Amino acid sequence: MSELRWDPLKAHWVIIATERGRRPRDFHREPMVPDSTVCPFCYGFEGKTPPELFSVRSYGEPNSPGWQVRVIPNKYPALRVEGEVRSRGYGLYDVREGVGAHEVIIETPDHHQSMADFSPAEITNVLYAYRARMLDLRNDFRFRHMVLFKNHGSQAGATLSHSHSQLIAVPLTPPVVAKELRICRDFYSSHERCIFCDLIEFEIKEGVRVVRETADYLLVTPYAACFPFELRLYPKHHAHDFALLGDRQLAELAIIMKDMLQRIKVVLNDPAYNFILHTAPPAQSRPGKPDYWGSIRYDYHWHIELVPRLTHIAGFEWGTGFYINPTSPEDAAAFLREAEVS
Amino acid sequence: MSELRWDPLKAHWVIIATERGRRPRDFHREPMVPDSTVCPFCYGFEGKTPPELFSVRSYGEPNSPGWQVRVIPNKYPALRVEGEVRSRGYGLYDVREGVGAHEVIIETPDHHQSMADFSPAEITNVLYAYRARMLDLRNDFRFRHMVLFKNHGSQAGATLSHSHSQLIAVPLTPPVVAKELRICRDFYSSHERCIFCDLIEFEIKEGVRVVRETADYLLVTPYAACFPFELRLYPKHHAHDFALLGDRQLAELAIIMKDMLQRIKVVLNDPAYNFILHTAPPAQSRPGKPDYWGSIRYDYHWHIELVPRLTHIAGFEWGTGFYINPTSPEDAAAFLREAEVS
Repeated sequence: MSELRWDPLKAHWVIIATERGRRPRDFHREPMVPDSTVCPFCYGFEGKTPPELFSVRSYGEPNSPGWQVRVIPNKYPALRVEGEVRSRGYGLYDVREGVGAHEVIIETPDHHQSMADFSPAEITNVLYAYRARMLDLRNDFRFRHMVLFKNHGSQAGATLSHSHSQLIAVPLTPPVVAKELRICRDFYSSHERCIFCDLIEFEIKEGVRVVRETADYLLVTPYAACFPFELRLYPKHHAHDFALLGDRQLAELAIIMKDMLQRIKVVLNDPAYNFILHTAPPAQSRPGKPDYWGSIRYDYHWHIELVPRLTHIAGFEWGTGFYINPTSPEDAAAFLREAEVS
Repeated sequence: MSELRWDPLKAHWVIIATERGRRPRDFHREPMVPDSTVCPFCYGFEGKTPPELFSVRSYGEPNSPGWQVRVIPNKYPALRVEGEVRSRGYGLYDVREGVGAHEVIIETPDHHQSMADFSPAEITNVLYAYRARMLDLRNDFRFRHMVLFKNHGSQAGATLSHSHSQLIAVPLTPPVVAKELRICRDFYSSHERCIFCDLIEFEIKEGVRVVRETADYLLVTPYAACFPFELRLYPKHHAHDFALLGDRQLAELAIIMKDMLQRIKVVLNDPAYNFILHTAPPAQSRPGKPDYWGSIRYDYHWHIELVPRLTHIAGFEWGTGFYINPTSPEDAAAFLREAEVS
C-alpha cells in the first residue's frame, strides 16, 4: 500500500509506492521493457491492461481494437484510488494513506510513432483525452490536484517505449504548484494583473527567447531556464484552466505542440524529454469543509513546460536547489527558431 | 561570463554558465571523457590543470607528482572567482554576476580506484582537503555558502572517471540550505533543542531504518526518502560545522564513510551516486553590512546525504516537487544492513 510520508527536516512529502516494491536487483539495469516482448499498449492486447476509462475510437467495443487514444488505470499505480485520505503522526514524522488516481493515456495504436510524428488531428485527440479525464477526476473531492505529464525515452523515466502520457490525481497540492499559485495570487493582489500575462508581453517585446509565436500561443525558452533547451508554451490570452478549453483551442494547441516537439527532435537528435501541464487546481469545496484552495483560481495561467533530458541532475543541484545551465536560453531559442520543420 | 538569473514565476535562481557554452551537438552523446584519452587528474599531467590550491603529498614540488590528494580550480567553472557581486533588474527578472569559486578535489592519484576502495587513511586525507578548502574560502566575504559534493559515475553527472569531488562557493544561500536552516531555527526557537538530535534519538530507538551505528556516527535511510536506497550519515553528537572538526573526528568519519560506500557498492552493483555535505554557512558579517546569516548557526547539525542514482527523475517529480520512491526505506535499510563488507 502506498503512503505519503512527511520529512520534517526537508518540509516535504514523498510518495513511498511500496506496491512496486523494487529490490536491489531490480536496479542493476535499465528498467525499459525490451521491444521484443508483447506490448500491452498495442492493438489486440487490450486484455493485458486494466479496463479502459476513456477512448477515442473509430470502431469496436471498449477494450478491443479500433481506438486512436485509450486511457487506462496504471497497472502499478503510485497512488491507489480506493480509500479515504487519513493521516497520523509518527514521532516528528507524518504519514497519509496514498490515495489518488494514476492513469495512462495511450496516445496511438502505432507502437513505433512518437508524438512529434503525429498529425495535428492525432495530437488533438490526445488533448481531448487529457481534458475528459481531468474533468472526470475533479468530481472526486479527495483529489486536490491533477498532474498531467509525459516521459519520452528511458532517460526521461519512460519504462515502455509505446507513446503514452500519464495523469496522477494527488490528495495534496504539490509543492511546485503551491508555490506558483502563491506567486500568482501575490502578484494579482498588488497589481490586479496576471504575472504570466506580464511576462508573456515582455518576452514578445524582447523577442530573443521566442521560438515560435502563433495567434494564440507563444513558445519561449525561459529567461532563467534550469536546463539547456528547456521550453515553456503559453496561451497568449489569459486562461486559468486547461480543462475548460474548447475544441478549437485544443486544435490550435495541437499545431504548436507538434511544432515544438519537431523542433527539439530535429535540433537535439530525438532527445528524451518530459513535458508537464501546469493548470489551475479544480475548484472544490469539500462537503462541510470549505477551504482556501476551494476557490476558482482565475489568477493562474495554464501552460506547458518541456525539459529535454540532455544533462544529468548532479550532486550540486540535488544538494542546493540551484541549477547550472550550460547553454544560454537566448542561444537555445536561436537554434530552435532556425530549425527546419514541416 | 556566468550569470545568476531570477525566475519570478518559480521564485528561484539559476546559474547560466555560458563559459561552458554547450551547443546542440554537444548533447548528442554522453559527455563522459573516454578512458583512452590523457587524464589530467593523473600523475605527470599536473600541467594540464590550473595550479593547485592545496595538496596532501609525500614528496615533490606543487604541481608535480607525489601528492595523495590535490585540489585545483575547475577549468570550466560554473562561477568565476573574480569580480564583485553586482545585481540589476531586467523586466520582472533579476540578474547577478556569477561570482563564486569552483574547485575540484582529486581524491587519489590512482586512475582506477573509487572511494569505496580507499583505505580509511586515504579517505581521511580527502576529508582534510575538504576542511582546509572550506576554512580558506570562508575568508572571502562574497561567499555565503560552500557546497561540497561528489558525483560518481556518468549517470550522477561525472564527466571524468578519475575519482574526484567538487567544492562550489556561492554568493547566495542556496534554497535547499536556506529551508533547512529555517527549519532548524524554528524548531530551536520553540523547543530549545536541535531537530536533528531529536530525530537521531528517535531513529536509534526505532532501529528499522538504521544501517550502521558507531560511537560517533549514525547511518540511516530517511523515513521519507525521495529515492530508493537514499542514505543520511549523521554525527550523533551535536555539531553545526563540518569545517571545525578535529583530526580524530575526521578519521572516525572516514571509517563509516568507507562502510557506507562499500555497502552501496556491494548491494547495488557499484551504482552511480551523489553525496553532498550539508554544513552550517560560514559565520560572516560583511564590512558595514551585518545581516541575518552572519550569526553562527549553532542550531544546525552537519551531515552527509547520499543518493544512489538508480531511477530517473521524471516528469511527475519535476512538475510537482513530489517524489515517488518505489522501495521502502525500511526494506532498503535491511538490505544494506545485511551486506557483507570488509
